[in-house]
Amino acid sequence: MNEDVDPSKSQGALPRVGMLGIWGATLAGTVALFFLIDACGARLQAPLAASPPPDKTSISGKPDALFHVLVALIAVLVTGQLLARLFRYIGQPPVIGEVVGGILLGPSFLGRVWPEAAAFILPPSVGPYLGVLAQLGVILYMFLIGLELNPAELRERLRSLLAITHSATVVPFLMGAALALYLYPRFSSNDVSFTSFALFVGVSLSITAFPVLARILTDRGIQKTGLGVMALGCAAMGDAIGWCLLAFVVGVAQAKVSGAFVVLGLTAAYLGFMFLVVRPIVARLLARADEMRWTQGIAASAFAALLLSSLATEAIGIHALFGAFLLGTVIPHHSPLASTMTQKLEDLVVVLLLPAFFALTGMRTQIGLVSGTEEWLVCGLIVVVASAGKIGGTLLGARWASAFGWRDRLKLGILMNTRGLMELIVLNIGLELRLISPTLFAMMVFMSLATTSATAPLLQWLEPKSAKIA
Amino acid sequence: MNEDVDPSKSQGALPRVGMLGIWGATLAGTVALFFLIDACGARLQAPLAASPPPDKTSISGKPDALFHVLVALIAVLVTGQLLARLFRYIGQPPVIGEVVGGILLGPSFLGRVWPEAAAFILPPSVGPYLGVLAQLGVILYMFLIGLELNPAELRERLRSLLAITHSATVVPFLMGAALALYLYPRFSSNDVSFTSFALFVGVSLSITAFPVLARILTDRGIQKTGLGVMALGCAAMGDAIGWCLLAFVVGVAQAKVSGAFVVLGLTAAYLGFMFLVVRPIVARLLARADEMRWTQGIAASAFAALLLSSLATEAIGIHALFGAFLLGTVIPHHSPLASTMTQKLEDLVVVLLLPAFFALTGMRTQIGLVSGTEEWLVCGLIVVVASAGKIGGTLLGARWASAFGWRDRLKLGILMNTRGLMELIVLNIGLELRLISPTLFAMMVFMSLATTSATAPLLQWLEPKSAKIA
Repeated sequence: MNEDVDPSKSQGALPRVGMLGIWGATLAGTVALFFLIDACGARLQAPLAASPPPDKTSISGKPDALFHVLVALIAVLVTGQLLARLFRYIGQPPVIGEVVGGILLGPSFLGRVWPEAAAFILPPSVGPYLGVLAQLGVILYMFLIGLELNPAELRERLRSLLAITHSATVVPFLMGAALALYLYPRFSSNDVSFTSFALFVGVSLSITAFPVLARILTDRGIQKTGLGVMALGCAAMGDAIGWCLLAFVVGVAQAKVSGAFVVLGLTAAYLGFMFLVVRPIVARLLARADEMRWTQGIAASAFAALLLSSLATEAIGIHALFGAFLLGTVIPHHSPLASTMTQKLEDLVVVLLLPAFFALTGMRTQIGLVSGTEEWLVCGLIVVVASAGKIGGTLLGARWASAFGWRDRLKLGILMNTRGLMELIVLNIGLELRLISPTLFAMMVFMSLATTSATAPLLQWLEPKSAKIA
Repeated sequence: MNEDVDPSKSQGALPRVGMLGIWGATLAGTVALFFLIDACGARLQAPLAASPPPDKTSISGKPDALFHVLVALIAVLVTGQLLARLFRYIGQPPVIGEVVGGILLGPSFLGRVWPEAAAFILPPSVGPYLGVLAQLGVILYMFLIGLELNPAELRERLRSLLAITHSATVVPFLMGAALALYLYPRFSSNDVSFTSFALFVGVSLSITAFPVLARILTDRGIQKTGLGVMALGCAAMGDAIGWCLLAFVVGVAQAKVSGAFVVLGLTAAYLGFMFLVVRPIVARLLARADEMRWTQGIAASAFAALLLSSLATEAIGIHALFGAFLLGTVIPHHSPLASTMTQKLEDLVVVLLLPAFFALTGMRTQIGLVSGTEEWLVCGLIVVVASAGKIGGTLLGARWASAFGWRDRLKLGILMNTRGLMELIVLNIGLELRLISPTLFAMMVFMSLATTSATAPLLQWLEPKSAKIA
């Protein structure tokens, strides 16, 4: 046998050459035929364009929108992730990093040091698109927060929870309203009534960020301790109360005094409907279909319900996110539906859509508007009043209604002083309704960042020496 | 002992009354204090509003956008799901139902029989927002399609696949280009060159819908048979070729003749970069991190890569969805990353975002523009040419390069004639680039629906009697 000739190889090589030849011929033939057709077509006359140049620019404007949305999302995602990592590294909750990232990309930093880059990354024209994405993101996020709420766990410690939550909400609310006496002549506008303004400042000081708090507790590994469970419960209940209050404020601001009660009535009716009608139906459906396979039909029904509930609250005159949150609380926390929805939505919402919200917040935050010693003193005053109200209120309630010692009471107060993302959502609503000026908005964003980032160091400082080593 | 008094009950009741009292007192006190503050504030004067009435309307316009986006999404989702179920019931792929739903909500049906409802559900102002959502949806969807592609499976049957795919692409492409000779003077406009028009018609006739085909095969339980695997392979490869062709067409249409080669060069460079640089890096990263826990950092990196790749192709001048598709094909099909991403994204994309795309298509489809016997005959001609080209091309290739009998060859041709969603994506790009007129767009949408819905009945009809009973 001749070893030089490997029959399998030559067999493999020849057809390959043959195939390449056929392929080349096909390609060449196709191109030739196409050019023939093209030559025939060159003499054809098409009808006149309906409306040539002006429409052409409007259409080229559309892919531009996508282009800028993509640029903005990338910039926000990457900056947010980098800063989140940095903040986690220095012992801060990552969400602060993401918020700071949004602010850095906005007019406060990038818009100043490199205006051209800021105009490329976040041009004003991209605002509305980013806005809709951000709002959808927040709606989905609030739905997830609602799913995370476990009313059964809250019921066990109802008495302490009620007492602490109430005092931790009422005290900062009243202190905020009192602070409004000072802020109103300086940072509001005459088309906003003092009542709406005071209500809004009160509510925005009494917000606690349930999810950030949950994250801080998990990071420190104390989410299962008595203190951790109590803090989570208080934050969850405080959230619910805060949102109800905010819904009322929005109603008052949107509809003036008489209309506010209509809004309030409709809200109460909707709440009743959700808890007395929808909740039992959902529970029965889920109980019957416990072994149910997850299908796209179920996903579609869940999304439809989510959108409908959001639309209902938006139509009532409070914000769409209340409806999403409510639907989340109505779905049993331990159902497979809740865990599947969380698992499917969480990453997309947290990683892709919430950054759009942070970017929007950053675009609106103009730290530069806070200028001069006096305004920074006001800013400091807001931080002090917010913290004093929240920590003081918690201490008061915890002293009366819990068995915690002073150190744990103080820790609870510091935890409750976490505001994070929730505060930003509230502030954005206030800015959209023009309840607060851009300057006050910037101060409040600063307050939110300051109180949230103070939590971890203060907790560390309160920890007894022995625990630090362990 | 006195049985009337149940100590545990009275113990429970008294504190409850006491708590209610305390709660009432707290609430009343808070309200009273707030009214006191409010009374003090009533005399305060706020600064003048910066720009009162005009801005106010523009801000009230923003929540409106969210409201209308929610209404549109709900309408589209619910209609789509209902029609999908109906179509599945009559043995058609559900996606046709969703597309028909989108068309029914648009000017073709609802806009005629109930213009007020159409203006409420899909007002023109909601178009841009729906557009960005739809485009993000299609980008994510194309990414998922790319993930589903398994190059290893294709390699095994490379020879038959190449032959069948090429003839099933070339024949309808050339027939489409020839058809363009007839269509150009009637349904194009004089600011589009014949070359771009002919290329586009050719490409749009040679598209096969990989995902719809996969669905039909699964529904009939033949996805693992020789015919099924071959059909899937051809569709996948055909898709890839079709998209490359379309990228070329878009390049030609966007940049005229000279620029088209720049676009082509950049596209080739990007393809090379993705397959020669990115693909090995991704493979190495995934191999090293095989046991890797899924974290939000990974999700963030994946999303960032997806957005970057989309942005790159958009910047090159072809469509963002090519970049998404490419990234999908570069990630190994069997990696945990691919399956996790699919699992996390699929429902949201298919259930919530793609319907926005169907609605957008429906808003743009004006079946009413196709009027008179002659235009409907043209429409029929397009359907006939598209089917003849696709089925004929497949028969030709399969006769030469496969061992299938005539029945299986015909079945393969009928399967390849499925166009579905992919065709709509192509048509929307053509309409945006003004390559085709709204009338031709409507005809092509009709063609897409007709060829896709013909697949299942024709297959049924070809099935031998015995198989029908089994």
